[in-house]
Amino acid sequence: MQMLPIHEQMRIIAKGAAEIINPEELQRKLHDAAGKGRPLTVKLGLDPTAPDLHLGHAVVLRKIRQMQELGHRAVIILGDFTAMIGDPSGKSKTRKQLTHEETLRNAATYKEQLFRILMPERTEIRFNSEWLSGLNLAAVLELAGKTTVARILERDDFKSRFSANLTIGLHELFYPLMQSYDSVAIQADIEMGGTDQRFNILMGRDIQKHYGQESQVALFMPILEGTDGVEKMSKSLGNSIGINEDPRVMFEKIMAIPDSLIIRYFELCTDLHPDEVDLYRERLDNGENPRDIKACLAHEIVRLYHGRQAADAAREYFNTVYRDREPPKDMVDLDVSPFTDDQGNTDLVRILVKSGFAPSSSEARRLILQGGVRLNAEKVNQFRIPVRDGDILQAGRKHFTRLCKPDRTC
Amino acid sequence: MQMLPIHEQMRIIAKGAAEIINPEELQRKLHDAAGKGRPLTVKLGLDPTAPDLHLGHAVVLRKIRQMQELGHRAVIILGDFTAMIGDPSGKSKTRKQLTHEETLRNAATYKEQLFRILMPERTEIRFNSEWLSGLNLAAVLELAGKTTVARILERDDFKSRFSANLTIGLHELFYPLMQSYDSVAIQADIEMGGTDQRFNILMGRDIQKHYGQESQVALFMPILEGTDGVEKMSKSLGNSIGINEDPRVMFEKIMAIPDSLIIRYFELCTDLHPDEVDLYRERLDNGENPRDIKACLAHEIVRLYHGRQAADAAREYFNTVYRDREPPKDMVDLDVSPFTDDQGNTDLVRILVKSGFAPSSSEARRLILQGGVRLNAEKVNQFRIPVRDGDILQAGRKHFTRLCKPDRTC
Repeated sequence: MQMLPIHEQMRIIAKGAAEIINPEELQRKLHDAAGKGRPLTVKLGLDPTAPDLHLGHAVVLRKIRQMQELGHRAVIILGDFTAMIGDPSGKSKTRKQLTHEETLRNAATYKEQLFRILMPERTEIRFNSEWLSGLNLAAVLELAGKTTVARILERDDFKSRFSANLTIGLHELFYPLMQSYDSVAIQADIEMGGTDQRFNILMGRDIQKHYGQESQVALFMPILEGTDGVEKMSKSLGNSIGINEDPRVMFEKIMAIPDSLIIRYFELCTDLHPDEVDLYRERLDNGENPRDIKACLAHEIVRLYHGRQAADAAREYFNTVYRDREPPKDMVDLDVSPFTDDQGNTDLVRILVKSGFAPSSSEARRLILQGGVRLNAEKVNQFRIPVRDGDILQAGRKHFTRLCKPDRTC
Repeated sequence: MQMLPIHEQMRIIAKGAAEIINPEELQRKLHDAAGKGRPLTVKLGLDPTAPDLHLGHAVVLRKIRQMQELGHRAVIILGDFTAMIGDPSGKSKTRKQLTHEETLRNAATYKEQLFRILMPERTEIRFNSEWLSGLNLAAVLELAGKTTVARILERDDFKSRFSANLTIGLHELFYPLMQSYDSVAIQADIEMGGTDQRFNILMGRDIQKHYGQESQVALFMPILEGTDGVEKMSKSLGNSIGINEDPRVMFEKIMAIPDSLIIRYFELCTDLHPDEVDLYRERLDNGENPRDIKACLAHEIVRLYHGRQAADAAREYFNTVYRDREPPKDMVDLDVSPFTDDQGNTDLVRILVKSGFAPSSSEARRLILQGGVRLNAEKVNQFRIPVRDGDILQAGRKHFTRLCKPDRTC
């Protein structure tokens, strides 16, 4: 295996990391790996219940990709075991129990998404049920005996719940241990995670030692804020940008982030060299319109996941519809004849529903009454009106369709 | 099955019990049992590491015996599972790990001792490894999910250790759960124990309910103080009276308990009717020598485990040696010729070791120098002295041997 010099590898791995515990161990592991021509095993654990990867996941995944390019191999662990058993106390409504089939289906989706970032030939995907479901009580007690109640209750969420007298099921104390045991099972050299995984990943270091293994290095990446600019990016909070999303939607979502996040997104979500990021920072400092810099950011990120062509198209669409408030060039045509009566009045309500711009007739009516519907850029305030061939119907900011008259060919 | 009326059974079961949780449930269970002609299952868990049963265990076992006589059946659970896995944290030096063979050997000893009190035909002995060793992680988490961290940490010893910042291994939290799961496995109707088992047995009630079973009734017996009159009777504290001990030793140990315990021992260790115990209480109150009442107690208890003849003999031996300070009638003869030199001096040190009165020569010398050795009731202060045929050598209070001269037939 041809590898870069250790100090070069260190520089690449450390770039953008929030914390490494600890750099000396990482250096030694890289050295050993180079000496033995053996790639390091980089572990990432993922919850198989939510197979929609977003830019927050990508912060970690792209760091793994960099390590793969250095010659190392990734082991992605899908935590199917806990997903399959659900919540044993039956108290948590949020943890849905998954069947084995659902897990496998999710895994397939994951794979497809992961390989938009990771190198398939240097990635192994494992299910932790492989080793966890076989553990018997004696082995479980052995594992549990390697830590203490006080230590486990130090974890932030346990600590706060415990001191607030909120219920903690005894089984919950096991989750950090299971994650740690995953590291033992695959003999992880490095475990990746957001800084919110600090407790679990550091516990993995201890547990590996107890099982006679060298402790993994903990490599923490910063937590990416979602489009709201406040909360951690998360699908359930509705502030996420999926890596599989339509290029136009992705572009639009990025354009909606607060200006204060522009540089952070450049740093965490693009491959730009720090010097290039500095240039954007300067342009912002010099008073350039943040919207223009954000468009560069959006283009850069969309390009990363969808290629240059899609990125260009998404930018053009955005500029036309949102910046210049003009109809996009690729509108769908809609034949209004089935919705037009003998007096020549067209039923806009039904058209809005038909074209998917409103989920129901009542919503369509509400949209019209609120002034959210335009015909050729003029607000409409009636449900039925005469239209001409080629009229453009607009609902909200971004939904457009071109209307065709029944007596003409569309 | 012919059974006594419920209220009669209730009276017998409740007699001497420290607490029943709860009597209404017990009554209902007895009623159901009578209706279905199905005996109740009475559970007792024992630690297989210490197979020397003493009067403290007997308090509980004799209560079980009474229930067997009412037609119910006992299931004795030997906790071999935890004994076989030892202490997974490796921190406790005191919990010895037992092999399967040792466990089986201990179990055989247990059986022999248990059947001095219990009815073999209504007793089943089970090892909890039978159901615990087969539990896998999913089942363990299910079990753990049925309780909370706060609940488990309410147990007295955990509570005090936790608040004193003493280490509690995470695996230890499982022990009450495993004991509870034993109740599920055998579908216990009643669990017996000392009042110090309160937490574990009440948890068993909860856990059974979680597994869809009716909760067991908890039947707590008082804790018997040992011969020191202070601590709970326990072999490791050296204050116990084993049910298998030699009748003389048993008699002697009972004679050594503090007077304040006489009535309590009558109540907890004999089968005497409460009215008879009241008579002894009156005699004590009337100023009769407690020593004489204690002799009745000792005779009663020895009779229970060794029969009337052995009890009579033990009393006679005690009276002769301890009360009248005379040599017992059944002394062993010892030929002193191998220990006597040409000058006719006998080596007392070697004789004391030979007869087992002193563990070593230095101990024998110490005993002599401290005035603990007598020849025909006279203190000896030399290591070598001339002896005559028929001389009686006494070491301490209770060791006697008759010395024979070499030129005579013993």
